[in-house]
Parts: sequence; C-alpha cells; structure tokens
Amino acid sequence: MEKTTVSKATLGRLPEYLRTLRDLAPEDGTHISATAIAKKLSLGEVQVRKDLAAVSGAGKPKLGYEIGELIEEIEHFLGYDQLTPAILVGAGKLGKALLQYREFERYGVKISAAFDLNEKPIIIGEKTEVLPMSQLESFCRDGHIRLGIITVGEGSAQEVCDRMVGCGIEAIWNFAPCKLSVPSGVLLQNENLALSLAHLNNQLCNHN
Amino acid sequence: MEKTTVSKATLGRLPEYLRTLRDLAPEDGTHISATAIAKKLSLGEVQVRKDLAAVSGAGKPKLGYEIGELIEEIEHFLGYDQLTPAILVGAGKLGKALLQYREFERYGVKISAAFDLNEKPIIIGEKTEVLPMSQLESFCRDGHIRLGIITVGEGSAQEVCDRMVGCGIEAIWNFAPCKLSVPSGVLLQNENLALSLAHLNNQLCNHN
Repeated sequence: MEKTTVSKATLGRLPEYLRTLRDLAPEDGTHISATAIAKKLSLGEVQVRKDLAAVSGAGKPKLGYEIGELIEEIEHFLGYDQLTPAILVGAGKLGKALLQYREFERYGVKISAAFDLNEKPIIIGEKTEVLPMSQLESFCRDGHIRLGIITVGEGSAQEVCDRMVGCGIEAIWNFAPCKLSVPSGVLLQNENLALSLAHLNNQLCNHN
Repeated sequence: MEKTTVSKATLGRLPEYLRTLRDLAPEDGTHISATAIAKKLSLGEVQVRKDLAAVSGAGKPKLGYEIGELIEEIEHFLGYDQLTPAILVGAGKLGKALLQYREFERYGVKISAAFDLNEKPIIIGEKTEVLPMSQLESFCRDGHIRLGIITVGEGSAQEVCDRMVGCGIEAIWNFAPCKLSVPSGVLLQNENLALSLAHLNNQLCNHN
C-alpha cells in the first residue's frame, strides 16, 4: 500500500509494535487481534487500530491481523527494506554524534556520507568518512540523495542549505540555531535543542 | 509575576520578541503596541497578545507595552537573570556537543558540570570539565541542582536516572533511546532524535 503521512506519536509507536510482533512465539498462532496488541503494549484498542490503519489494511473480523504480513507492512513503512540515504554537512561534535547514532536505521534513514567545510577528508571509525564540500554535488547526484542534515554553525547554515537545494535535496533537517529560507517544495524541519531544554526548564520552574 | 507554563511555540518566540524590543531605537519612544510588534515579526496580533500575556501584564490602552519593562519581564521569564544550573551525565560525542552548545543560556539554562562513568576527569576547552561519577552526589547537593541531562547509552541510562533522582534532581532530559522510569513528581522529557528524522523522512516519502 501507499505510504501515508502519520503523526510523530504514531511513528514513535511503530517500532514498539514491531518488537512486540517479532517477540511472539509460534504457539501464539498466525493472527493477532488489536485487543491483544493493545494489552501487550498498555495502549487503548482504538489507538492501536488507528495506528495500524496507517500502515496496514484492517485485520480480519474475529481473526485480527496476520502476524507475518503485519510485520512486513510495518518494516516497509519504516523503510527497513529500503533505507533513505541522507547526507550530513558539518562534522563538528554534534555532526559526529549524529553520525554514530545507531537509532536512525531503526527508523528508515541511513547517513551515507558527511561533508565538512574543512577541505581535508576525515576518517571516523571504520564506516563513515567526512568528505570535502567540493564532492557534495557529485555525491548527491550519483546517490540520488534527497535528505540533508545541517550541523554547521549559524554563520554558514544558509549557504550550506542553498548548496543542498542546488544538489536536488528535497528535505532538510536543520540543527543550526537560525531561520533558513528554502524554495517552496523543499521540506524544512528545524531542530531547536535549546527550545526542548527551555520547555523542560519552564515546567520545572512551575513545579511545586 | 509568577512564571506560568507556556507552550513550546510561545517559548520559541520569546527570544524573538526580546531581540525585536532590544533593537528598537530611542526615537521609537517608550511604549510599543502589540500591533507594532506583530508587524515587525510578521505574526498575528492575537498571537502576540497571547504570547506576551504569559510573561507580562496587558499593555496600556492606546500606549501599549512599556518597552524597558517588557524586556525585563521576558528576560526574567526566560531566566536570564537567574540561569537554572543543570548537570549532564555521559560525555561522549553527543554530551560534548551539548556542552559546547551556546544556545541553552539564551533560554535560561546553564550546564554547570558534566559527569562520565569513566572515572578520570576530562578537560574540554577552558570552561567545562568532566567530573567522575563519584562526585555527582556532592556536586548536586552543594549546587542545589534540579535539572539533569542524560547522554549515556541505553545500557546505563536507568542507573544514571536513578542516581540523579537520588541526588534530588527533579527534571530529566533523556537522550538515551529507551524508556526510563522515574518516581511521580519527577519530570521526564525524552528526546528521540531518530523520531524527528523519521518524521521528516515520512513526509519526504509522501512528497510529490
């Protein structure tokens, strides 16, 4: 089935459904009901039905979902069968932390390469290397890269963003603490870590 | 006035209001209307009134907000006059990136010290040093620390969380990709970076 856009909350639960389904033993049978899934995850039944409707057809009456099929559908939805390749620009501390973050692949994205304004290539561990910016265009073109992550400072973020757009990148995840302008049609998601912390601090200040 | 809990969206706009107000020239006068602020920031007037109501009294009819007073009120709300001290446990790449992130202070939080399960103290730059875990309790007690940031791996996150709670920490910002349990009364905010990226990827997959 066609992928649909789901809420962050649903997206966050999908790996949990997957883990639960994979943990089922053969003696649990071939099908599972929404009620049984809801119970295992301490979720509401309506919630489970709604979440799974985004990735799968409805379960069969009285039988529920065919387990193997549902596992495949969730894996497909999360992109396990075809990871989206992404590139990252800015191999400072945050960039390097993201490069080594293993959770991305569990959610369907793989950082294929990192680039840095520093023109010298940098080797990190065994897997990922940092390439000079002069190779950005050819790498993105050859790899059909559509997703870019910006972890450079505020001063060079817009320039990097423009180059990414020029390379055909259609979705940008920006960690630089500034507003970027992108052409209409390009998705931009700003990650303001300070804002998350401020939100927690704000709750703390109002806490007893 | 008492601090109130505001939405993340309002919180994110407060530094922008502050910048706008500070940029006003003396010839702009002593007061500014919600209409004028809204215009400068391309926001709706109702939005501006609502945001500012969280931090300030209402502006005076026909005059608007007294500029100096409003600046002070926003600064106070964001904690500029009294930064909340926080500690961080886990000085890996992500931890070090957060330690060097300057934006936190703009939103009222200062990371006072970092700790690592590795018992050797580590010096980073000039300002912040990484202390051994054996000093966690005394540091938190002496500094009246209420806010803790977890950047250790999944395997040790719950143990670190328990120690933080034992030290009197009341709000925890967790970057480890796992569920933590905290006693009721302790605020827990999970930061799942993979989920943010997955959300963008999900939109990208449905794009065009």
